[in-house]
Formats: sequence, C-alpha cells, structure tokens
Amino acid sequence: MTKAVTGTQPGLPAGLLAELREVLGAPHLLTDPEVTASFTTDWTGRFVGATAAVLRPSSTAEVAAVLSACRRHGVALCLQGANTGLVGGGVPLQGELVLSLRRLATLGPVDPLSGQVTAGAGVPLADVQATARAAGWAYGVDMASRQSATVGGTVATNAGGLRVLRYGDTRAQLLGVEAVLGTGQTVSHLAGLVKDNTGYHLPSLLCGSEGTLGVVTAARLRLVPPAPERVVALLGFGGVGPAVAAAGALRRRLGSLEAAELFVADGLDLVRRVTGAGPPFARTHPAYLLVEAAAASDPTDDLAQAIGSLEAVGDVAVAVDSVRAAELWRYREAHTEAINTLGAPHKLDVTLPLGSLAEFMDRVPGVVAAVAPEARCWLFGHAADGNVHVNVTGVGPDDERVDESVLALVADYGGSISAEHGIGVAKRRWLGLNRSEAEIATFRAIKSALDPDGVCNPGVLLPN
Amino acid sequence: MTKAVTGTQPGLPAGLLAELREVLGAPHLLTDPEVTASFTTDWTGRFVGATAAVLRPSSTAEVAAVLSACRRHGVALCLQGANTGLVGGGVPLQGELVLSLRRLATLGPVDPLSGQVTAGAGVPLADVQATARAAGWAYGVDMASRQSATVGGTVATNAGGLRVLRYGDTRAQLLGVEAVLGTGQTVSHLAGLVKDNTGYHLPSLLCGSEGTLGVVTAARLRLVPPAPERVVALLGFGGVGPAVAAAGALRRRLGSLEAAELFVADGLDLVRRVTGAGPPFARTHPAYLLVEAAAASDPTDDLAQAIGSLEAVGDVAVAVDSVRAAELWRYREAHTEAINTLGAPHKLDVTLPLGSLAEFMDRVPGVVAAVAPEARCWLFGHAADGNVHVNVTGVGPDDERVDESVLALVADYGGSISAEHGIGVAKRRWLGLNRSEAEIATFRAIKSALDPDGVCNPGVLLPN
Repeated sequence: MTKAVTGTQPGLPAGLLAELREVLGAPHLLTDPEVTASFTTDWTGRFVGATAAVLRPSSTAEVAAVLSACRRHGVALCLQGANTGLVGGGVPLQGELVLSLRRLATLGPVDPLSGQVTAGAGVPLADVQATARAAGWAYGVDMASRQSATVGGTVATNAGGLRVLRYGDTRAQLLGVEAVLGTGQTVSHLAGLVKDNTGYHLPSLLCGSEGTLGVVTAARLRLVPPAPERVVALLGFGGVGPAVAAAGALRRRLGSLEAAELFVADGLDLVRRVTGAGPPFARTHPAYLLVEAAAASDPTDDLAQAIGSLEAVGDVAVAVDSVRAAELWRYREAHTEAINTLGAPHKLDVTLPLGSLAEFMDRVPGVVAAVAPEARCWLFGHAADGNVHVNVTGVGPDDERVDESVLALVADYGGSISAEHGIGVAKRRWLGLNRSEAEIATFRAIKSALDPDGVCNPGVLLPN
Repeated sequence: MTKAVTGTQPGLPAGLLAELREVLGAPHLLTDPEVTASFTTDWTGRFVGATAAVLRPSSTAEVAAVLSACRRHGVALCLQGANTGLVGGGVPLQGELVLSLRRLATLGPVDPLSGQVTAGAGVPLADVQATARAAGWAYGVDMASRQSATVGGTVATNAGGLRVLRYGDTRAQLLGVEAVLGTGQTVSHLAGLVKDNTGYHLPSLLCGSEGTLGVVTAARLRLVPPAPERVVALLGFGGVGPAVAAAGALRRRLGSLEAAELFVADGLDLVRRVTGAGPPFARTHPAYLLVEAAAASDPTDDLAQAIGSLEAVGDVAVAVDSVRAAELWRYREAHTEAINTLGAPHKLDVTLPLGSLAEFMDRVPGVVAAVAPEARCWLFGHAADGNVHVNVTGVGPDDERVDESVLALVADYGGSISAEHGIGVAKRRWLGLNRSEAEIATFRAIKSALDPDGVCNPGVLLPN
C-alpha cells in the first residue's frame, strides 16, 4: 500500500522563487532538500513527494501574495499544516510548491462573553484546548494528534476525533474563517456572530474541502462549557446489534454522553494477549461498549440510571476511580498497538448506517477472505456515529484488493468510504463509490468557481 | 416601508405552460389570479408580486423536469415554502413563475438508532416536531410560525428561532439534502452519516442560500434528546452589560440553558400598561434576563446554583410552577403585541458582538432621533447570541432612513444586518454593509457555478 510517488518537478518559471523570497524573506523560503524532506514525506512514510521550495508565510497578506504570484506563473501549491494527514493530501506528489501554514500561529484571546476564540491556521489543537481551559471553557474537538495537528489542518479536513458524538465535527465548531481563495480573493468574516444570515456560508464550504478551494488562514471557533466530572463504564452484550441499540438509547437519555466505543471479543482477546491485562468480566461477551459521560457535576448517578434502563445488557462495570477508568479505556485504546504487533495493517476508516453496522461487521471477514484468504480482520469503532475502523493484517502492503472490497461493501450499505480522514490522494479514485456523477460534477463546478486556475491542491479529492 | 412591487410579467415562451402542465398534471399548475393571489403576496402584505402560474410539483423528479423546462426557455422561478418569510424572498416580484414546494410532504420514519428523520421540503415544522416527539426524540429548531413554516423554507433561510442558544440554527441540524441545482443536476445524499468526509458539504452551502442555488426537495435532520423538565427564572440587573455577562456565565455553567431573553425597563413598562400585568419585583431594574433551563430531570437545583454564582444580580424570581413560568414568559413575549398598539413598527432583526451589545442599545435612540425625532425605539432580544430586535414606532412606513441608520450602526460595531430573516429582496442593497467586495464576488462566483442561467430566485440575496 506504499505510494512512494516521486513528484515530477516541473521547471519553475524564471524569477518566481526570487519573487516569493521577496514576499516571505529568505529564511522562510526553504529549498535545501535535507530541510524540505520533512515537508515532502507524510508521517506514515507512505506518501513521498518532491518540491522546489517550501514557503512559510506569516500572515494572510503573505499568503495572498504567494497565491497571486503562483497564479500568475501557473504554478500549483500543496497546502500543509502539521503534515499529520493519512490520505496523502498534504505532500507535494505532483511537484507542487509546499505552502506551510505553521507560522500563522496567532491565538486568542478567548471572548469570555461568547465563549469563542480566533486561531491562526498554524496553531496546534492542543494550544486551542489549553487556552480555552485557562479561560474556563473547553474546545469540543480532540484527537490523538492534538499536540501537532493544526487548526488549519483540522478545518481543511473537517476533523472529527474523540468527541463528535457530543460536540460534532470541526465544521460544527466553525463560526467564521479568514481565507485566501483560489481566485485570489481574501475573505474575512471572524466576528463569530451565532445568528448571521447574510449570504452563503463559506466556513462550512471550506471546511472539509481539503485545501482544494483556497487557503484558510484563521478560524473563529466556538468553545463549549467545561465538563470536568467524568465516569466510565464497560458493558458486555450478546452481539453488535444490541450494543449499537444500547448506544442509541444512552445518547437519547444522557446529554452528558461523550463516548460510546465498540469492540468485540476477538479484539479484546488480542489486546489481553499483548498487554497482559485481565478480563473485564468473569465471562466473555461477543460485543462490548465502553461509555463515558462528562458533566459539570458528577454524572455517575445519571449514567447508572441510564444503564439501568437498557435492555439486553450482559455485564456492567462502572469505574469508581480514575485508575479503574484508565484500565477500562485501555481495553479499547490498546487495539491499535495490539494489531500492530501482527504487522502493518491495512486501515480503513468508514461509516455505516447504524442499522447496518452489525451486518456489515459480520460480513467483512468473508469479503476480505474472498480476495485475501490469509488475512485477518479486526474491527472496532464508535457505536453512536457508525464509524468503524477496519484493520486487516496478513496482506501485502501494496495489495489494494482488500481495501477495494471493503469500501465497495461499505458503499453497498450506503456507508461512507471516509469517515474522518478525507479523500486526499489515497481514496479519490473511489469517490464514485459514494458520490453520484451529479455530485462530482457539482464539486467540480464549485472548484472551478473558487480555484479557476487549479492552483490549490490540484491532485486532491476530485478524481482525475 | 411597503414594497408593493407589481412584477412585470414577461411574455412566456409559447408552449412552456403546456409542457409544465404535462409534467405536473393540470390541477397542479394554477393560473387563476384569485387562486394565485395567496402565492404572490407575502403574509406581511409588504411584498406583492405577480405570476403567470404557480407550479406545484409532488416529487424531486417533477422539480427537475420543471427546472429543466424553465432553463431551456430562459424563464425564472421564485421558490416558495409556506410564504412566511419576512424579507420578500418568496414572492414573484420580477414576474417569475412560482415553484411551490408544499406538496413535497413526505415525512419519516424516525430512525430510532441514530435519532434522525428525513423530511420533504413541504413538511411543516410542527409535523417534524410531533413525529420526533412520538418517537421519543425532539427537533432542535422551534419558532412561532411552526404550524406553517416548512422544512424547505427553514433550510433555505437557515432558520434560527427559539432554541439556537442550545441546539444551533437549522444548518446545525442538517445532515443531508436532496436538491435540484440550478445546473439541472439532482443531488441526493440522505443517509445521515455523522462522519462522512467525502467532498464539499452541499447541505451547509444550500442552507441559508435563500433558494438562489437550487431547490432543496428533502432534508435529513438530526434530532435531539427530549428535555421535558423545565424551569424558568427572571433576573433583574443594573444594566444591559451585566445582564449580557450573566447570560454568558450561565451558558458556561449550565448545559441545560435553553433561553436567555433580554428586555429593558421601558419595554417592561409598556408591556405592563398594555397587558395590565403586575410588576415582577418590588423595585424597577434597568435590564432583565428571562432564563429557561430544560433537561431530562428537573433542572431547578442546577439553575438555582448557577444563578447563585452570578455577580451583580439585583432580584431573582424562580417560577415554582407552570402558571408562574407562563407569567414570567409573558413579560417577554408580550413585547410584540404591546409595541403594535403604538402603530406598525419598523422591525430590524440584527446581531451584535456581545461585547458591544450594551453600547449599541444605548446608542440606537440617538441615531434614530437624528433622522426621525418623533420616533421611539423598543429593543429586546436574545442575550446569549447577541440577537436584538430593534422596533421603531412613530415613523412613516416608507421612510427607510431609520432602517438605514440602524443597520449602519450595526455594521459599525461588526454586527450582522440580518440575524435570522435573511437578506431576501428587502436587505440586498445593504449587503455591502456586512460583506466585502471580495465576499460578494465569491458569492457571485458560486451562484454562477450552481445556477449559471439565473433561474433560481434571481432577485434575491445578491445586490444588483
């Protein structure tokens, strides 16, 4: 599955780099291949591109000047945040110049009245979280890559993460953006007005567009009330179907529900073998739900009541302290490292309609076995939003038949071939599994309207 | 302020009506002026248009056929739901054919696992609410026009309403749409997958576009857990500033906060004179906050604790039963009828940044007096989202200097000239107060991409 594409480096127009050096200052136009290597290879090592220069603007005006010069010279840009993407959308696979946005790092202050903050595209997610916390608020988006992932990257990819169930995706946090569009226009609407029906909602359009329409340079983010009191429980079920139904029932009863993670007996066995952890219950269950509730005051009673109202629960363990809570979370979180001990897996991040989730999970092993008899499948995910992580071990890295079979099955059920990671370069030839010709034609019309010269991330999202 | 524009009726191309009659069936192409009158006049009576025919399709395919015929013949459409809009966006002021979407009335069923429902554009909001309730869920959007306002209209205008503070606007509920775009393309993405990063988010772009990009024929809506237990309190403050600060503090502490309505001493006096209601407190306060919390279990203790933590509260009245709760709400809700006893007011629906709200409210009377010395100003609104209803009495109906002065002041403070109602026809010449040339050029580029022939609501939103 390695996609070590060495970008073909087009001859750059004479004078372009000199012009860009003038705009950025010499220290912020990088050309030394040893220095640019970390910008041209993605962090998984699967996607390797090449570039003549990495450009590091420090302001929206500099971004606009770079875009203007590149449009004039017909040279494309690859937009990059922290380069933590998983689908090859942030490295210069077609020899683009790299536009690194990490220096757009202005943050705050938090508006205490509205609970909002403006963050530059290069601000790491963890800094937004810390700044919100210091002001008595919280940021609704969280994910494992929080220390490096940037606001700009999370906006471009509409990052989801650990708390989508409760607070929604990045789009749901986004009250305004400043951006330089592919047309060269700079648009800025950062007042953060919650009610503001004055035209098309550009923040929502740019969010999730994977840098194909323009460069988001800053975002106005809504914050949420902090929920410091937490309780965690593990529930055992007779199957995935009852576990998914229980997650839905808990969500309906419990506004404080923040996680409803699903895993199955196979995965738990593997985790226990690798970590040496003891069993959660005296008996084994086919499916498990790990739930967490969080609120301003202790949500334990509310969670216990909601669990008490569920049908078809086998066993229940409620964590009485943070040590036990961490032990319960470990069963779920250790899945990735446990699977990695079997070799680098093929990883597919998909969403299924909740009503089809159990049947899909049943069918995946057969579909995979049909093209890769030696393979093993490991499935876990988020029971409340239908997001399943399909991991397949025992398959050669370049063998995409497994990926294709699983994604086709996802599409058959009306699911999404990309829950969170986006389409990028990796999945764009499969976009047609999810999107009709009319939808893709509409995407192209929007792309042509806002990036008429194809300067922004030309190899990303839309199929060739 | 009456805008009785009689649309100039262009000569319709020969054969178009016959072709449309073929598509729709004769009973669903209305041409009798007595029958079409209710479609050509808006419900305020301010906007009066004219049309050769009202078209009433019953399916997305019929909408597509209508759009195709109109594009071929170069004839524009005026899109209409329940015709309850306030800015002239839904009546044929340029002699367009009226496309009434009320027959697209398919609703449900509720998916009990995900808490979602699909509704046709013509389904009344109240029906969505009732269907959600019957399935053990609730719909997050509510407003006074719920019995007639349609899903399609609320999507087209990104309706806000009474619970934006808690659940967000219509865009925040919208997980998917089916639509016929101005290009003639039918796009449909209604699976309601919460995590689905597979291209540009057309639902968010169409929501709030006021019918200028295409016809939304159905919407996939997220539902929310029901919150049947309610408590209401009225708080008196020394000024608007402390009241707004208190609303922010309550929102941060109280996830169950559903309303934080602001009014002032003047307005309360008028309400009491008109309704005969007694005073809420022994002494008068310059500003009042009416708050409501709602949850699965009684939120009274949580609200009382949160109020107890506030600084600068003068008096507090917590309703102990639903009769008292209704009395407290009446102080706020009776503002509209009390103001109407002074003559038809100029009404402006604007949003201010919370930090400027108090200063804005202070300055409005002076700004109005400068152009209309006889006028009186009545201001009330939503303290948590900065939405202010500016009502001005004692001004001639056609005198727009008051409107223009207030909207310019709003823009000076970085506020929005349209909180909820949209731009429509009424405010489009003022769009430039809020949106830069670059933003408006971007809107035009999107309009050209998705409605290249200008068939959909040509007179709406974008300035001439």
